[in-house]
Amino acid sequence: MNEFELIQTYFQRDALDPSVILDNGDDAAVFSPRLNCETVVSVDSVIAGRHVPDLCPPDGFAARLIGRGLSDLAAMGATPRYVLLSLSLPTLEVGWVEHFAQRFHQLCVRFGVDLIGGDTTKGPLSAHITVIGDVPKGMAVSRQGLKPGDDLWLFGPDLGGARAYLDVLQNTQADHALWAERYWRPEPQFDFGIALRNVASAMIDISDGLCQDLMHLVERAKKPASIKLQSKMIPLCADLVDRLGTQTALEYALTGGDDYCLLASIPSTARVPEGGHRIGLVVQPENESILLDGQPLPESWQLGWDHSR
Amino acid sequence: MNEFELIQTYFQRDALDPSVILDNGDDAAVFSPRLNCETVVSVDSVIAGRHVPDLCPPDGFAARLIGRGLSDLAAMGATPRYVLLSLSLPTLEVGWVEHFAQRFHQLCVRFGVDLIGGDTTKGPLSAHITVIGDVPKGMAVSRQGLKPGDDLWLFGPDLGGARAYLDVLQNTQADHALWAERYWRPEPQFDFGIALRNVASAMIDISDGLCQDLMHLVERAKKPASIKLQSKMIPLCADLVDRLGTQTALEYALTGGDDYCLLASIPSTARVPEGGHRIGLVVQPENESILLDGQPLPESWQLGWDHSR
Repeated sequence: MNEFELIQTYFQRDALDPSVILDNGDDAAVFSPRLNCETVVSVDSVIAGRHVPDLCPPDGFAARLIGRGLSDLAAMGATPRYVLLSLSLPTLEVGWVEHFAQRFHQLCVRFGVDLIGGDTTKGPLSAHITVIGDVPKGMAVSRQGLKPGDDLWLFGPDLGGARAYLDVLQNTQADHALWAERYWRPEPQFDFGIALRNVASAMIDISDGLCQDLMHLVERAKKPASIKLQSKMIPLCADLVDRLGTQTALEYALTGGDDYCLLASIPSTARVPEGGHRIGLVVQPENESILLDGQPLPESWQLGWDHSR
Repeated sequence: MNEFELIQTYFQRDALDPSVILDNGDDAAVFSPRLNCETVVSVDSVIAGRHVPDLCPPDGFAARLIGRGLSDLAAMGATPRYVLLSLSLPTLEVGWVEHFAQRFHQLCVRFGVDLIGGDTTKGPLSAHITVIGDVPKGMAVSRQGLKPGDDLWLFGPDLGGARAYLDVLQNTQADHALWAERYWRPEPQFDFGIALRNVASAMIDISDGLCQDLMHLVERAKKPASIKLQSKMIPLCADLVDRLGTQTALEYALTGGDDYCLLASIPSTARVPEGGHRIGLVVQPENESILLDGQPLPESWQLGWDHSR
């Protein structure tokens, strides 16, 4: 089976959304943007041995790829519409590709996106996804608007489970179904993102760890600010405290990353959607950018995930 | 220097196009689609050791990446607007990144596109580019409309030079400046693409080799057809015949790929833009899909480039 047969057999599906004029099989895909909307676009990659284990099951690879990618659209308050996939495979294991594609298509349907293009090539196992969505004109929520007086909110899954699953992968912890789910099946928080369009001053999804992503909001803010977090308000993934103790549980939750919940800075007067956790306050700048229960963050914490490390 | 500093230092530039609402540095980029236009989008990859030599100079890597990628937009008759870049680097050689970024930005300006997003990660040397352009509603030229009675036309650089340069890379030919240019600096044919919007029945860019890309047009056509090519009408890159002999020159031109000129099927009654080469005819289906000077293609020819090979 060559590249063209591979694409035709496993990746070509008719687009469901009538806005798609031309999908897979041409030089490029063509879609008709929705009236009075802006287009939101991002790229993300999953590289074996880096973002997933070297020997990665195809369904997990697909789910992590599309979940991580689409989470960037959720973080803008966008409605997801289309994805394009660039897949690099060391060898053509048809069974692997078949399972990957099956899971990928299943999640496309679940998240309401059409796979409208892509390419495959021989190379180290990796995949790059382009995600495209839209927002009504002027409604995208950027990282830029955090300001003193806002409250800090989390929307979506509790924290630390994906980080704890890395210990399972390294055999230093017994397996844990929910941690595995957090790691392998990131769930983009579209409904919360859309509900926060007119509400949040700034928003980001937690991919690099709560503290590091929070720092992105602080650094991009137009007004200087500091953050006061309350540890008891931070939602921790099940069994983190029991298995790891309070300190490590908190470290994993605040620095682990791969949680893909939404972190939003919201004016204290705003009407906040149900289901979030208020974890802290944005205050006038102090010596420390982030205080946890009034104290600086422990120096021993590895603050987040640097993809170039 | 970590991932964020790397992106900030070398890749973040303010977008020039006022349609860009939000560029690099957020979860996703946001742009405002032009009125009465459709959006055209494609992804392409360049992997070291596969599409370029293992030890690839940064400027060549950048030029091949953006040239190959944008050529897909030219093949749709689209105007290029934005690109996103996903770059994977085995080690952080700042000098390499600096030269890569410099050349990449230079070509963005030259081709009239803004780099609006991307990511970098540690991994085998490779890059994936997302290219986005637009066409007035209904004007995208797909691969689908070829039909008996059309003429076949080429627009853009003559053929075979990029293939011949592979021999230079493998030290079986002396260096050749023009062949090197064809290989390292693919030139997307936007002007021809746009001029062909109302003219071509079907169009494709030649990346996999004239014959193979021609077969894509034949296979995607709604009516069965065969192709009659005239060898003497096919524009050959300089010195191909002198250095390689007529037969190999023709083989390289028809099967080599990486030429990135546009191949268009055009009704014989249409007004054809200046500067093209009429290389053959689309006829009623015969036994062979492609005849060259009335004969089947030599069986020994390796027909084009299969990226999964």
